[in-house]
Amino acid sequence: MPMNRRFLLKRRPQGMPVADDFALVEEETGPLAEDAFLIRNAYASMDPAMRGWLDDKPSYMPPVPLGAVVRASTVGEVVESRNPAFPVGSWAAGLNGLELYSVGNAEVARPIDPKALPSVTHYLSLLGGAGLAAYLGLIEIGRPKPGETLLVSAAAGGVGSIVGQIAAIEGVRAIGIAGGPAKCARLRDYGYAAAIDYRGKSVEQLVAAIRAEAPNGIDLHFENVGGDILDAALLCLAPRARIVLCGMIAEYNSEPLGARNLFQLIVQGARMEGLIVPQHVARIPEASAKLAGWLLAGRLHVDEHIEHGIDRALETMLRLFSGQHDGKLLLRLDGEEAR
Amino acid sequence: MPMNRRFLLKRRPQGMPVADDFALVEEETGPLAEDAFLIRNAYASMDPAMRGWLDDKPSYMPPVPLGAVVRASTVGEVVESRNPAFPVGSWAAGLNGLELYSVGNAEVARPIDPKALPSVTHYLSLLGGAGLAAYLGLIEIGRPKPGETLLVSAAAGGVGSIVGQIAAIEGVRAIGIAGGPAKCARLRDYGYAAAIDYRGKSVEQLVAAIRAEAPNGIDLHFENVGGDILDAALLCLAPRARIVLCGMIAEYNSEPLGARNLFQLIVQGARMEGLIVPQHVARIPEASAKLAGWLLAGRLHVDEHIEHGIDRALETMLRLFSGQHDGKLLLRLDGEEAR
Repeated sequence: MPMNRRFLLKRRPQGMPVADDFALVEEETGPLAEDAFLIRNAYASMDPAMRGWLDDKPSYMPPVPLGAVVRASTVGEVVESRNPAFPVGSWAAGLNGLELYSVGNAEVARPIDPKALPSVTHYLSLLGGAGLAAYLGLIEIGRPKPGETLLVSAAAGGVGSIVGQIAAIEGVRAIGIAGGPAKCARLRDYGYAAAIDYRGKSVEQLVAAIRAEAPNGIDLHFENVGGDILDAALLCLAPRARIVLCGMIAEYNSEPLGARNLFQLIVQGARMEGLIVPQHVARIPEASAKLAGWLLAGRLHVDEHIEHGIDRALETMLRLFSGQHDGKLLLRLDGEEAR
Repeated sequence: MPMNRRFLLKRRPQGMPVADDFALVEEETGPLAEDAFLIRNAYASMDPAMRGWLDDKPSYMPPVPLGAVVRASTVGEVVESRNPAFPVGSWAAGLNGLELYSVGNAEVARPIDPKALPSVTHYLSLLGGAGLAAYLGLIEIGRPKPGETLLVSAAAGGVGSIVGQIAAIEGVRAIGIAGGPAKCARLRDYGYAAAIDYRGKSVEQLVAAIRAEAPNGIDLHFENVGGDILDAALLCLAPRARIVLCGMIAEYNSEPLGARNLFQLIVQGARMEGLIVPQHVARIPEASAKLAGWLLAGRLHVDEHIEHGIDRALETMLRLFSGQHDGKLLLRLDGEEAR
């Protein structure tokens, strides 16, 4: 039985996670129950939502129990199996955890074909939570019309880098907000017509910058950050605007910030809607097919920032909050080259 | 030409309006332009939205100019006319102002039949902004399903007193929030299955009170108040909940308060949408017909709180914010008995 390495939650983080909140342990993988299989995880997706799962708060998913592995989506190869749908040598994706080996079952894992996409990592980035959130948020919740104007925060991130490209395909003019000149310079590659650097800007300065790019207001806002950026976006809405609330990373390590300018939803008759991908499960096949089709047709590309090694799980997670990554942040768990 | 009395905006209020912000003046009504007509206003609707129109802020309507009459919806009799669609002796409703006489034109006024409803005031309460907001907000934005649970703030107010009754007709279980035991006692008359007195309660205490009445969460929230009540409601949402943002009277005389617990929209995949009646103009005939039908069939009743005299315009307006009224607040402008 192979030796596992697992990144466990030892203590609930107060604010930003620190090393003492976790323990990296070695454990032998045990015998498999009937219908189970053992996945050797190749990559884990590092998502802002992971931080919320560490808190003991009611949410759309139960909190990670103390002593349990830190929950994460992974892809990997099946190395032992008591389930004929997941034979040894096949690949599986699923909500597992930051560990070298995960015990899979048919409820949390789905088979994937590692050769169907240019990289197996695309199952975590484009066809994982980030790409699906981008598609479902923009298309299902935002319902964009060609010629409309879209504002996106964390536009160079895992979700935002896809949102801009889908917007361009759909004929929507996208304005991206990102932190620092280097990220802003990349936004054009992600389909954005304009870039706004939020760093050092007050709400009023953000409003001025958004209005300069969208003098008639924004029809759509795709929110990944919250805080001041959401407050500024609220002051720039066009009538009947839609706000896709995908993430609020500005407050994941603090008390709730919310937004002060909510009255603008009344002023403009605007809508704000929260996105959790599992609620849109019926649309995932369509979303996956569209995204994969655009990727294979060269109409969309995926930037991935890959860190290496389970011993770097925490520092990789912290990059989500410091913004030190472009595109989708992933953690390589095995030692092999990408397939 | 009759002598008019007009309640003018002299200075923009800072916070709660005070006497020096206004001037009550006497002016002769002038000669009528072609197609115009003169309405002797019988009643004005006193609405929280009037406060927002006094501020010099971009909104769905231009601010009331300094020196102009304070904008309000009125009903009255046509006493002079150069428009055959509005003959002398007919009645008109429209967005006019707090004044004894308004010059009407076909763009801002519509003819009404004062005998078609039990009281001509029903054109301002049930078929005016309050009743239409209740219907359009609950039905069009909220899309309630029988058996769902609805929370309503300012449940004894002009809008809330109608929302509860529509909910009861639609088979929705309504929980009303109001200020003080007297108002809470009236909520049963407005279709509410349960009442919560918000006075003296913290957000945490409000949450506990809501959860006691809605252990599975609230499917719908109809917000007229904002502030702590909205923050408490956000913590009690059921999955896929809808929040109708109709008013935020808690912040109309202060800096924006907004809400801190917006992340709950993501946690529950919930939607919050602002309501302004003019955006739903196509549905007004249907809404009016339904509301009038329920009224005439005795399935719905309208409580009106009527103050008398244009010299009491300010103190009547302040009742909106102190909560010293039950049902729809109106101001009688002429000296006659109600028709």
